[in-house]
Amino acid sequence: MTVERHRVLPGTYCDSVLLMRLQVALEKEPGVTTAAAVMATPANREILEQSALWSDEFAAHRPDDLLIVVRAEGEAAAAQALERADTLLRQRSAARGTGRRFHSLERALAEHPDASWVALSIPGAHAAAVARQALMADRHVFLYSDNVSLDDEISLKTLAGERGRLLLGPDCGSAILGGRGFGFANRVERGPVGLIGASGTGLQTVCCRLDDLGVGVSQMIGTGGRDLSAAVGGRTTRQALALLAQDPETEVIALVSKPPAAPVAAGILGAAAGIGKPVVAGFVGGGASQRLGQIELAGSLEETAVRAAHWVGQKAGVHPSRGSGVLAGYFAGGTLALETALALARWLDPLHTNLGIGRAIDPAAPEPSQHRLIDLGDDAFTLGRPHPMIDDTYRLARLRQAADDPATGSLVVDVVLGDGAQADPTGELAPLLGQLGQRATDRGRDLGIGVLLVGSRDDPQDREAQRRRLAETGAQVFTTVGELVAWIAGRHLGPVPPSDHTPVDASALAAAPVIHLGLDSFAESLTGQGTEVVAVDWRPPAGGNPRLASILERMKRG
Amino acid sequence: MTVERHRVLPGTYCDSVLLMRLQVALEKEPGVTTAAAVMATPANREILEQSALWSDEFAAHRPDDLLIVVRAEGEAAAAQALERADTLLRQRSAARGTGRRFHSLERALAEHPDASWVALSIPGAHAAAVARQALMADRHVFLYSDNVSLDDEISLKTLAGERGRLLLGPDCGSAILGGRGFGFANRVERGPVGLIGASGTGLQTVCCRLDDLGVGVSQMIGTGGRDLSAAVGGRTTRQALALLAQDPETEVIALVSKPPAAPVAAGILGAAAGIGKPVVAGFVGGGASQRLGQIELAGSLEETAVRAAHWVGQKAGVHPSRGSGVLAGYFAGGTLALETALALARWLDPLHTNLGIGRAIDPAAPEPSQHRLIDLGDDAFTLGRPHPMIDDTYRLARLRQAADDPATGSLVVDVVLGDGAQADPTGELAPLLGQLGQRATDRGRDLGIGVLLVGSRDDPQDREAQRRRLAETGAQVFTTVGELVAWIAGRHLGPVPPSDHTPVDASALAAAPVIHLGLDSFAESLTGQGTEVVAVDWRPPAGGNPRLASILERMKRG
Repeated sequence: MTVERHRVLPGTYCDSVLLMRLQVALEKEPGVTTAAAVMATPANREILEQSALWSDEFAAHRPDDLLIVVRAEGEAAAAQALERADTLLRQRSAARGTGRRFHSLERALAEHPDASWVALSIPGAHAAAVARQALMADRHVFLYSDNVSLDDEISLKTLAGERGRLLLGPDCGSAILGGRGFGFANRVERGPVGLIGASGTGLQTVCCRLDDLGVGVSQMIGTGGRDLSAAVGGRTTRQALALLAQDPETEVIALVSKPPAAPVAAGILGAAAGIGKPVVAGFVGGGASQRLGQIELAGSLEETAVRAAHWVGQKAGVHPSRGSGVLAGYFAGGTLALETALALARWLDPLHTNLGIGRAIDPAAPEPSQHRLIDLGDDAFTLGRPHPMIDDTYRLARLRQAADDPATGSLVVDVVLGDGAQADPTGELAPLLGQLGQRATDRGRDLGIGVLLVGSRDDPQDREAQRRRLAETGAQVFTTVGELVAWIAGRHLGPVPPSDHTPVDASALAAAPVIHLGLDSFAESLTGQGTEVVAVDWRPPAGGNPRLASILERMKRG
Repeated sequence: MTVERHRVLPGTYCDSVLLMRLQVALEKEPGVTTAAAVMATPANREILEQSALWSDEFAAHRPDDLLIVVRAEGEAAAAQALERADTLLRQRSAARGTGRRFHSLERALAEHPDASWVALSIPGAHAAAVARQALMADRHVFLYSDNVSLDDEISLKTLAGERGRLLLGPDCGSAILGGRGFGFANRVERGPVGLIGASGTGLQTVCCRLDDLGVGVSQMIGTGGRDLSAAVGGRTTRQALALLAQDPETEVIALVSKPPAAPVAAGILGAAAGIGKPVVAGFVGGGASQRLGQIELAGSLEETAVRAAHWVGQKAGVHPSRGSGVLAGYFAGGTLALETALALARWLDPLHTNLGIGRAIDPAAPEPSQHRLIDLGDDAFTLGRPHPMIDDTYRLARLRQAADDPATGSLVVDVVLGDGAQADPTGELAPLLGQLGQRATDRGRDLGIGVLLVGSRDDPQDREAQRRRLAETGAQVFTTVGELVAWIAGRHLGPVPPSDHTPVDASALAAAPVIHLGLDSFAESLTGQGTEVVAVDWRPPAGGNPRLASILERMKRG
């Protein structure tokens, strides 16, 4: 005979994880067909009222009373299950330890002025108000809670920036701060790589991979998944970059995120280019890997870890590099132009091309005095005119003109050797480049000249001789698009955006204890790592539990 | 005193390259301020008539008469320049060799039935008709000419497919066929890599880089820049893939192109997956590199070369692999799900996700019985329910359901270890996976199970024990998204598209001689490589020369 029995535990607030664990454990008891463990919120009580599970006893209960209901095959099974619930709740009380527990955040803050972090994993609807309270008390906030509104996120992060504090989240799954793992975190060695990420499992994956590669992590700063959206604008990411730039433990910085909104990405990379430490930007799904000066873009988590590890110990020669003026590039090879433009289009703004990227160039109009890459092998330029790989006359004229423009900061050309191409492709080009460079120097201008040279060892033009002749003019000669792009980016990567936040003090990240509100399992995890936890027994001021609906639905079917 | 003098050379047709070279050479003569070398087409004569350069003598001339005009400082300089023109034209005649020259393609075809290739670099407006003539005579066509219409390209390629011939182009800059470089081509060793490309300089760059890496090229097949557009649909690329699949010299195939239209790419990769040779698809700007079964995607030219070289000698275990059914993936890590989905979205069609990729999944609706990847850590799934990294109950239910669907071919999950995560994340998962796999086997179904395991050596859950327990169930355990994606792609990469062309005979690619119409420099290049060239003196049936306009414009200013 199926019976339904319940137990009410007044003043026993449990978080959603614990409720779910209770329910799963009860359903495994012999003879139990279904079980529910819910807080007696008005919403939950209302749902219960409409079901066969209603007991008039429930009417009087308050939101922080725990209701346990089991449906079982007979009285004995039901009684045994309810006893099991008692046991589990006793075990939980034991696991929570003997440390002093607070009933309000105010008191915990007041009595622990040394606690630099407040960790929140309470339901999202209540999280913003509590986070604001912590920031106003000048604490950093680790905000695991999700379902926090975008408006709240922006106002919280603005406040954090003003007060020189970090607001990590909302929906921040993972962080390692001063050697302590917050939320979900792997146990890895401390070391020289500082991680910043809008992705919890992305950060975890990169830090585990680094550890496998024998490279440790200094800090791992989760920012929340929306930080690099256009609306939030990378507020926390930029704070974290500035922080890790100052952090003596951090030698290499790795970012992990989905590809950000384009202007946000340009701002982040502009900031990264100015800090004097190598930065690997792992924009998952953001395209092929590329080197942009001291910044490396990686397109996967694996590559982010491998490239960051590769930088460790290779910091020589890394310094913020800036050219002035704009880029003017003239290509004979369409794919060489395309690959270069694709690599630069998101970082040089505006970039004009005739490659279907950035702003369109009108072949007939005068060139804009802005960043531009032109494929002179395009149909529009070769109609009635020989291809530039056969005759360079037209390209040389364009180069002269660009060099005369005082706005031009870098000239770029490609030279492709081989059968069918010009017999001596640098015969006129090299002297011209030398002359244009010399004239700019005489006028006190910084005109960089970069040449991409493609050819085989056995090509009839003698690749080494061509290379030497170009290099003698003072031009930088590259053999891959990647090298060329790195050089261009080093000269022209976007301006450093002005800092709009109060600096965060890196040394305070490790200050103990951590004030904790929310999931017991996270508090246990911190305690297990040897961190002192100040627990605040947060309870929702009111609320419901949508999960109950599905449980009741199953009970009805059962 | 400035004088203008001219020379007329009746019946001396010159191509645009030669005209430009003549002009450039004449302008370098002492005392010459400007020079022009044009064919006496009606359009050119009309422009001349409106300028100060008109001479009544010109009125009588025909389109294949060459007109040379110089403006110089005095009679002596002008005379010297015109003599220089004579010399240059004599040199050209000598360079063209003593071989028999034809005045029509018909005759050349008729007298050289052994010539398998016709190489065309005549002006685009006339190229399609000549190419069609060559195809109808069952020759392969190398079509350098640009400014050929898309409609012409499609009809020429359809014809070529029907006749089992290749139409390389239009705007095909580069090819190496039977060891002979066509158009622009670098001198590289013969070897095991077959190249196919919609990009001339892209192909050149990859073949030069391969050569530097000590790896030679079997064939290099340019397809023309539009071949992988939706309109052309990769007709030549698919022919070339089928050809290189049969070619005993080719062990590894590398493709070079801009990222193709999505359905075209899926068709190409579907075809590539079925041929039993490794294929490196270098889609420049097409995203991060990934392994899809025996196919590797590379995002840059450099990477294409490096990966192709890497495959050489590593062919063991490469075979067309196919699973059946659809993919059902359930992730706890959002970024792990995203990276997996991004890697697969273009090849699995349709793919349903809740990651903003492919078709959107409604969290509340029943799952579609098609390829799907679901991030169960997404807000929509965690509202009122614990995150799957904390409690797997909900995910296990989804797995059971998917395994029961006979359409399901592969199940995928991630497992993330570390503090804060479940104490024993595979405690329930592994037995369930084992049971689902066994049940499928019992029913004669091929159900693959893949697990992505993320964790560090020191994580409290004991990574190695977790891995072992998963592997014992028969699941494939991976530690990077790249490995997981390769496994999924190997099972589910799109179907092999039906072949819609007559096979091309690989052995005939090297058959000499080459019938040549167009730029002298290309013919010289072939001759210089030791290839017998049958030259056809093609002349435009009518036409103009827009280049003249700019020359005259300069003369007016001069």
